Amino acid sequence: MASASDAALPQEAAIAALRQDMPALANKTYFNYGGQGPLPTASLQAMAASWRRIQELGPFAEPASGYVEELITSLRQTLAALCGVPPQRLAFTENVTSGCVLPLWGLPWHSGDQLLISDGEHPGVVATCHEIARREELDVGTLPVQDCVREDQVLERLDKVLQPRTRLVVLSHLLWNTGAAMPIPAVGQRLREHANQPWLLVDGAQSAGVAPLADAVAAADLYAFTGHKWFCGPEGLGAMALSQRLLDGGAPTMIGWRGLAGNPEHPLCLYGDARRYEIATSCYPLMAGLLQSLRSLAAVGDSRQRLALIQAHSGHLWRGLRQLEGVETLLPEPPPAGLVSFRVQGHRPRQVVHALAEQGLVLRSFEKPDCVRACCHVTTLPTELGRLIFEIASFVTNFRSA
Amino acid sequence: MASASDAALPQEAAIAALRQDMPALANKTYFNYGGQGPLPTASLQAMAASWRRIQELGPFAEPASGYVEELITSLRQTLAALCGVPPQRLAFTENVTSGCVLPLWGLPWHSGDQLLISDGEHPGVVATCHEIARREELDVGTLPVQDCVREDQVLERLDKVLQPRTRLVVLSHLLWNTGAAMPIPAVGQRLREHANQPWLLVDGAQSAGVAPLADAVAAADLYAFTGHKWFCGPEGLGAMALSQRLLDGGAPTMIGWRGLAGNPEHPLCLYGDARRYEIATSCYPLMAGLLQSLRSLAAVGDSRQRLALIQAHSGHLWRGLRQLEGVETLLPEPPPAGLVSFRVQGHRPRQVVHALAEQGLVLRSFEKPDCVRACCHVTTLPTELGRLIFEIASFVTNFRSA
Repeated sequence: MASASDAALPQEAAIAALRQDMPALANKTYFNYGGQGPLPTASLQAMAASWRRIQELGPFAEPASGYVEELITSLRQTLAALCGVPPQRLAFTENVTSGCVLPLWGLPWHSGDQLLISDGEHPGVVATCHEIARREELDVGTLPVQDCVREDQVLERLDKVLQPRTRLVVLSHLLWNTGAAMPIPAVGQRLREHANQPWLLVDGAQSAGVAPLADAVAAADLYAFTGHKWFCGPEGLGAMALSQRLLDGGAPTMIGWRGLAGNPEHPLCLYGDARRYEIATSCYPLMAGLLQSLRSLAAVGDSRQRLALIQAHSGHLWRGLRQLEGVETLLPEPPPAGLVSFRVQGHRPRQVVHALAEQGLVLRSFEKPDCVRACCHVTTLPTELGRLIFEIASFVTNFRSA
Repeated sequence: MASASDAALPQEAAIAALRQDMPALANKTYFNYGGQGPLPTASLQAMAASWRRIQELGPFAEPASGYVEELITSLRQTLAALCGVPPQRLAFTENVTSGCVLPLWGLPWHSGDQLLISDGEHPGVVATCHEIARREELDVGTLPVQDCVREDQVLERLDKVLQPRTRLVVLSHLLWNTGAAMPIPAVGQRLREHANQPWLLVDGAQSAGVAPLADAVAAADLYAFTGHKWFCGPEGLGAMALSQRLLDGGAPTMIGWRGLAGNPEHPLCLYGDARRYEIATSCYPLMAGLLQSLRSLAAVGDSRQRLALIQAHSGHLWRGLRQLEGVETLLPEPPPAGLVSFRVQGHRPRQVVHALAEQGLVLRSFEKPDCVRACCHVTTLPTELGRLIFEIASFVTNFRSA
């Protein structure tokens, strides 16, 4: 992820206004944006207004369908623009896991093909890949990147484990546990040079809403993300950007009326574009909520400006933690985005998270690799970072003296 | 569907109160409950309150997870009780199509097996079945039931088309176009007597919220439904009840953290119960909305009482339509539930629906078989039925004299 430190920092007033609109931030010190982002009240109000509008026009009537269609088109265009793809290559999903795994089932596998999964992927994606491998008689290999931070390290590892029969590589844009950024464009380039032209699936759960996405999306065959983490939208709505070759070469597996072109004589006549991967009725008012969250974030700055601010926060936290005796950061250099993972010597991560929760600080723990993860977003305050460093220092001191 | 005409009719006051809480019914004469039910304002308020609670407790923090877990458990128990199954056999889905087709992909198919699909099924389910057949080299047969209303007719048709290799029968509880009820318990009995023991998939889109479900669920291997039609809940939330043999014999296809038992050493270690079919983050506040809608409906009467009222309405409409010259009902006897489908001689269904929409009456048209569908729910008023009959009579007269 390119450094964005030269971009102008967003205005404090805009950040204060956004924080003011996020009740989740009022009664706690929140560092779990990577689990779920706080929902602006404006977004909740936009959803309620959307529900009222659907009831006024329908709920099931032509005027309501017209309204919903406009909502879908508007969000599709907005997210496609963020991804740098035409709207025809963006499909909505319920969550990021569904986006990651749904298209995989309809790819033309051959027995003996290899799936190469990084060791920093989410268990849901990993499990589905293993199930596909079981049914299609594929091999599963591991791409070990959890200790990598530089592009050349990742490419070296990739070269070591790539096989002639590798057919898919699964790699997150930002590893959800260590917080390291993966060099997706370079990995995509390497795969295009491979004789077997493996597909590249990128889990964007931790990058969407944090960093500019277009370069990584352009390198991926499938880039999946959710609205409810760093975009601060409602839970239950995500999307995926598909490459043209995946659209051309894959077949949808879960098929419903939203993907069907409506030819009663041909039961399998699907839309040619990404809508073929959408299934049936979703909660459309969530789209109004996510659109509002995107507007609220845009008021703070564009994606480069926001990344600059996030990097400033995570860098500050990373440096503060490294000055504490008995605390170890997972990354050897300042984090490329908002995730700051660390360990406290002699204490299990759950224990640290529990002690901090008692002080009103919200973080999460991981088991593999074992660590505590703190997330910084544009709404993070320097005082919150100071408090977190102080509380961890106190925790270490108290236990040492106890 | 057993007649429920001996059950006591629900109180008019409760119905008036429910209508009062449904803004969708205030500005139109609504007959599209089978497309989407009107959302009570109390349900919208329950969702907004749920979102605020999640923000107050989290959104991603242990107290919030505890609250969400309670919400999930409460709705799972409520829906399982309506289905007459233990909660361990009920899984949530985003919509009814997903519920119908998701478990199908993980069943142990053998090349040459036959899928038997009724001619009254929803295009999404049909399309996915054809795609499964294409990939697994299965045969697709048709169970023609669109002109059947009696149990013996359906069973006779079934006997005619059942093959030794039939492995799955797909049949709606209530046909979405004609409104006929299918004798699911009798069909289930016939399939249990078949040497190949075919699975029975029942689409409950038009029956859940209208009729008691337990007898049909008990006969089905998979009974899928949605909350946003006759249950008058929010869009984007449905569920499915699974038989024990389907739970034991099928494998989940879309796997995510909600189905994983959390064993980091075994990437495919799934829950043994129906949760294994749930994927990842959904919009949990919708569950609070559906719970409230279920309470609002229960205030009108239990499911037998509500069915009695719905049958009284649909019977009244059916008789009124049959007295109009040039109008033909699809069913030769009073409807078993809330769907009343009809044709107007010399007019395409779309044309009829359009003309009625101009008068503020909301219905929908079908192409196969071509018909107009009017839905009656407990909130339907006798005056609305009278107006619908009057407007159709006027439409016929105007066109005849024109």
